[in-house]
Amino acid sequence: MNNSFGSVFSVTTFGESHGAALGVIIDGVPAGIPIDPDFIQQELDRRKPGQSAVSTARKESDTGEILSGIFQGVSTGTPIAILLRNSDHHSADYAAIAEIFRPGHADYTFYKKYGIRDYRGGGRSSGRETAARVAAGAVAKLLLKEYGITVRACTCQIGTVKAQMPYNWDEVEKNIVRTADAGASEKMVQVVKDAQAEKDSIGGAVYGEIIGLPAGLGEPVFDKFDALLAHAFMSIGGVKGVEIGDGFDVIEKRGSENNDPMDKNGFQSNHSGGVLGGISNGNTVTFRLAVKPTPSIAAVQKTVNVHGDEMDVEIAGRHDPCLVPRIVPVVEAMAAITAADLLLRNRSAKK
Amino acid sequence: MNNSFGSVFSVTTFGESHGAALGVIIDGVPAGIPIDPDFIQQELDRRKPGQSAVSTARKESDTGEILSGIFQGVSTGTPIAILLRNSDHHSADYAAIAEIFRPGHADYTFYKKYGIRDYRGGGRSSGRETAARVAAGAVAKLLLKEYGITVRACTCQIGTVKAQMPYNWDEVEKNIVRTADAGASEKMVQVVKDAQAEKDSIGGAVYGEIIGLPAGLGEPVFDKFDALLAHAFMSIGGVKGVEIGDGFDVIEKRGSENNDPMDKNGFQSNHSGGVLGGISNGNTVTFRLAVKPTPSIAAVQKTVNVHGDEMDVEIAGRHDPCLVPRIVPVVEAMAAITAADLLLRNRSAKK
Amino acid sequence: MNNSFGSVFSVTTFGESHGAALGVIIDGVPAGIPIDPDFIQQELDRRKPGQSAVSTARKESDTGEILSGIFQGVSTGTPIAILLRNSDHHSADYAAIAEIFRPGHADYTFYKKYGIRDYRGGGRSSGRETAARVAAGAVAKLLLKEYGITVRACTCQIGTVKAQMPYNWDEVEKNIVRTADAGASEKMVQVVKDAQAEKDSIGGAVYGEIIGLPAGLGEPVFDKFDALLAHAFMSIGGVKGVEIGDGFDVIEKRGSENNDPMDKNGFQSNHSGGVLGGISNGNTVTFRLAVKPTPSIAAVQKTVNVHGDEMDVEIAGRHDPCLVPRIVPVVEAMAAITAADLLLRNRSAKK
Amino acid sequence: MNNSFGSVFSVTTFGESHGAALGVIIDGVPAGIPIDPDFIQQELDRRKPGQSAVSTARKESDTGEILSGIFQGVSTGTPIAILLRNSDHHSADYAAIAEIFRPGHADYTFYKKYGIRDYRGGGRSSGRETAARVAAGAVAKLLLKEYGITVRACTCQIGTVKAQMPYNWDEVEKNIVRTADAGASEKMVQVVKDAQAEKDSIGGAVYGEIIGLPAGLGEPVFDKFDALLAHAFMSIGGVKGVEIGDGFDVIEKRGSENNDPMDKNGFQSNHSGGVLGGISNGNTVTFRLAVKPTPSIAAVQKTVNVHGDEMDVEIAGRHDPCLVPRIVPVVEAMAAITAADLLLRNRSAKK
Repeated sequence: MNNSFGSVFSVTTFGESHGAALGVIIDGVPAGIPIDPDFIQQELDRRKPGQSAVSTARKESDTGEILSGIFQGVSTGTPIAILLRNSDHHSADYAAIAEIFRPGHADYTFYKKYGIRDYRGGGRSSGRETAARVAAGAVAKLLLKEYGITVRACTCQIGTVKAQMPYNWDEVEKNIVRTADAGASEKMVQVVKDAQAEKDSIGGAVYGEIIGLPAGLGEPVFDKFDALLAHAFMSIGGVKGVEIGDGFDVIEKRGSENNDPMDKNGFQSNHSGGVLGGISNGNTVTFRLAVKPTPSIAAVQKTVNVHGDEMDVEIAGRHDPCLVPRIVPVVEAMAAITAADLLLRNRSAKK
Repeated sequence: MNNSFGSVFSVTTFGESHGAALGVIIDGVPAGIPIDPDFIQQELDRRKPGQSAVSTARKESDTGEILSGIFQGVSTGTPIAILLRNSDHHSADYAAIAEIFRPGHADYTFYKKYGIRDYRGGGRSSGRETAARVAAGAVAKLLLKEYGITVRACTCQIGTVKAQMPYNWDEVEKNIVRTADAGASEKMVQVVKDAQAEKDSIGGAVYGEIIGLPAGLGEPVFDKFDALLAHAFMSIGGVKGVEIGDGFDVIEKRGSENNDPMDKNGFQSNHSGGVLGGISNGNTVTFRLAVKPTPSIAAVQKTVNVHGDEMDVEIAGRHDPCLVPRIVPVVEAMAAITAADLLLRNRSAKK
Repeated sequence: MNNSFGSVFSVTTFGESHGAALGVIIDGVPAGIPIDPDFIQQELDRRKPGQSAVSTARKESDTGEILSGIFQGVSTGTPIAILLRNSDHHSADYAAIAEIFRPGHADYTFYKKYGIRDYRGGGRSSGRETAARVAAGAVAKLLLKEYGITVRACTCQIGTVKAQMPYNWDEVEKNIVRTADAGASEKMVQVVKDAQAEKDSIGGAVYGEIIGLPAGLGEPVFDKFDALLAHAFMSIGGVKGVEIGDGFDVIEKRGSENNDPMDKNGFQSNHSGGVLGGISNGNTVTFRLAVKPTPSIAAVQKTVNVHGDEMDVEIAGRHDPCLVPRIVPVVEAMAAITAADLLLRNRSAKK
Repeated sequence: MNNSFGSVFSVTTFGESHGAALGVIIDGVPAGIPIDPDFIQQELDRRKPGQSAVSTARKESDTGEILSGIFQGVSTGTPIAILLRNSDHHSADYAAIAEIFRPGHADYTFYKKYGIRDYRGGGRSSGRETAARVAAGAVAKLLLKEYGITVRACTCQIGTVKAQMPYNWDEVEKNIVRTADAGASEKMVQVVKDAQAEKDSIGGAVYGEIIGLPAGLGEPVFDKFDALLAHAFMSIGGVKGVEIGDGFDVIEKRGSENNDPMDKNGFQSNHSGGVLGGISNGNTVTFRLAVKPTPSIAAVQKTVNVHGDEMDVEIAGRHDPCLVPRIVPVVEAMAAITAADLLLRNRSAKK
């Protein structure tokens, strides 16, 4: 199934950027989980467009309407469907580029795949699709909460500006770039504004954690905890790299440096990022993602159209000059969905 | 299904390091693909232990016996099963550590997950499991060959020694570390030998490519081409990071630098690594993986046993001092399986 | 995934009888299939409540709103979501039986499975759920139409009244019991009315056909064409038996009678019902289903409540006295979904 | 996946009638289940050919070799692979019919599906494939046993001879037709021998039960307990009809007759066959299957070959004159696999 993720806790999304609505069916939620609609909306609000000076000007309330699966405040075990109507779609913005392949976008590849494409705002390839993931992620977080598991992420780098560790997680929602380092936030904002002023965009990185996982989650061969996380994160448009634990730093390390010794109190370090042999070891799962600069830029770019004619293109419309701040809640959502799924899958590990 | 990968071209593996046998069922191979058993064996030989001075001394012929699915030299459309008997298992080496959790290994996590574990040589968590993947990958390569698609990978870094670009792919099988830079190979070998001499191990990186893909492969939302590759690669034991195209370099890039402009002849650059919006764009798909240093080292390490007693451990047995050279064919196998699956899945994209 | 059906053409439904809405996501529709919303609505109308003297008095317009996946009149290859709002739900009818297990219903089993249940109108176990299937089935029919494949079903028996062969398919939509034998329709209506008058209900049978299938559809072992049909049909609430071809008549047959001989023009008979070894043989696929009498009856019945107290119950509310007439379009929908899925799955059978 | 069945407890089979071997991977067996290899072999012996005067003369020991997934007598949570070598294959018997489509067989449909076929003994479409299912079913039975669940089946009819209820289950393995009515067994044997003597074959029926199931198993919409059973049973070659509970008898019943009333002690009758709304109700699950007469008969039949030439064919080789006695253990296996899967799936029903 092409638009689904997860085996037991499974999420199926639908909807185009400029269609009637987006939405999601969350199947496999065990009965009896308290579902707080306000929390779901709050999560959607963190991702919605138009929220700050460094995000797109598109205005969408992104109001999540819960259609099923909840009765008297708790999940019933049946599918939870959540609907988000589109309202502020300026489809006319896109008529001019209906036949043009925007550089860095999925226009060309959708056209080659399907023979046609819904060109309005990127159609299904729009980042807008991730709103449905955030709704599902909110439900996953509510499930995880029942088991003492939390997920958090933040912007750890924009351009060359890095957040300094140790991160101050209380800062994340206090600055518009969602970084965990108050000292870096202003510089990051400036980097984004500079790029935008120059009709350009800028890349960045997201760091995140899953806290409170029991040891034993993840399937040992193909569906390792980290493998599913990598799948989940790389499925977010714009993500080009995924690290678990020490990630690319392990290349130059020796085994004696990289192994995490154990004593009576557990692991003495966490180079592994909380996963050994693909299975959670009870430590915090840590990860870092590389996010490419927004492909939609106002500067003139070379491209071709569906007829193969070469041309210049300037991307009109309303776009985020940096994807990272609004990707943070999407990353959390995908981490939560993955953890929820593996938590439930693990229920059949033992007699 | 916990031990399967792929939707249409799907691979299910079984077997423990010190059990009777390993094997794989490859389901979904279209009828009519020429299957050359010698090629499958040749691929298995590239991964088998005991092949060089920098690999484990365990001796296994890793002879692949094809049990089904082939008639008169071609695939019949029914499952292809391939069996690999274990022969040189020194299970006695492991009796002493039956209750000890080896640092950096899956011993602790398997124990927490299942309540028991087959401690002999890591059981199912052993790298030996990847032999079955290589057999399946060989079948995937034979399928891809019919469509002009090839996969290749090489060691691009061990410790601090990097292979220099442009890579010379003809070199890869000529040196025991499988690097594509003849000038770097000796230094890499030395780095490995130094680590081993010091009872230690060393990390490294693998670079790879999928060449000849048509545009249009990959599913647009969760099962993006790059997302499935990330899943596939991160499911290989020891891989801690995955990059597609420019990977982590995109963090500091601007959109105008990172977008790949098009002209009549196609894309003028390949920062994206051949994937746009999760769908192949007809360019070469490129990727790089971080591989951790082998956790099994002869040096003394701190750990605990199943009873929580603290103790020192020295890992006896026969181990690769660097995982990278033997992971190269496994990486190719997982890339080929992923590409084969998405090639077939794409057959239902259009009317 | 508990609420999904199909591998390539896959259908995921959600919604409760008395919740906000029902709906379906249809994933895997190839791009370029003309999608006629009027046809979808027409199919929904065939199943909707309140359509005749022998169906429930509940009034629902069952208006299907297409939310995604269609652009300029054709499918885009992305998920097609269809929403059906509930309007005429008399939830108060059910408050009195919130703790009572209605005989023949899923009340007891849902309660045991989930620990709670949405008691309003049966919640998720309501026959109302099948509206979403009919919407999906309409899309499947539009896909099949492109390949010359059609599906049809009719009521072939109610109580002891049987429709006589050869069936006159033009009659089906002309009588309120949906039988293909005009001569039997009045008797069938009378049987239903008699049951209703006596505060009771009556069973029946559905016969159906899939016409125009190419030979070669179906997977040879577990996902045989007939096995998936049996799954599809038995998943419709109230269906207690499924036959393919000659069905239970084969018990007393000899091989020489039951085999369908071939000549140059194809098969000379169709005892097999169009399926050999689980794969379509190019003949019409034929099937027959047994449908139990509606469990909701106005007569007094013995039962217990959640506390184990014994009591009498009379089912208030509005119910079909015979399920068969309104199940006919549901049966067609499930047959169409199954055929569409296997048609697409077959695209990877050969090189 | 075309050759797999089950979601959590999942079974993937491979192998052709005249290839090197058959086998199965059973994935999803929880760790800690005692696995008795002798019991697995005993089940295989019940299905193996050459066991009686009314079964094929082919001699196969059908020795199941367990390759993985078991350590110190219990399942480890990793895949259990079981291998069965073929030995007594008279492939030469089939050379003469390599291009001929045997009536009632899958020869024609495989050829149309794949463009080629392994004609030796039916290849993958052979009933021999069910040996792998029986091995998997034995593992499922061992799992179910831990939860007090048992499965049993018997021959309830051959030709016009019916076993009389109440069944005497102790008789089943004492007569070569596996009926539960000692009085009917001789007549049944005679019916089979008569058919064989006349170069023909005969159909029959299987009745079965799953005993000791807790209430609550089965998923409410598509993957109902009875729907998955119907899928499982109809996937056995030769099965043309499936009934659950009262099956086709419900057609003529009224709701007041068909509903099973409850009192303090549970259900007072079992017309439903232990399933309500697709979910087990704690009663015994009952089912009946129609099995067609063996298509391989020695009598002359009309057919065509791959070139479309009309011809007569007499099926040489060694065949069961009635499929029913040897299908009984296969039916049990499929019922056990289905129940085991739904038992494990149900672990995520509630918080």
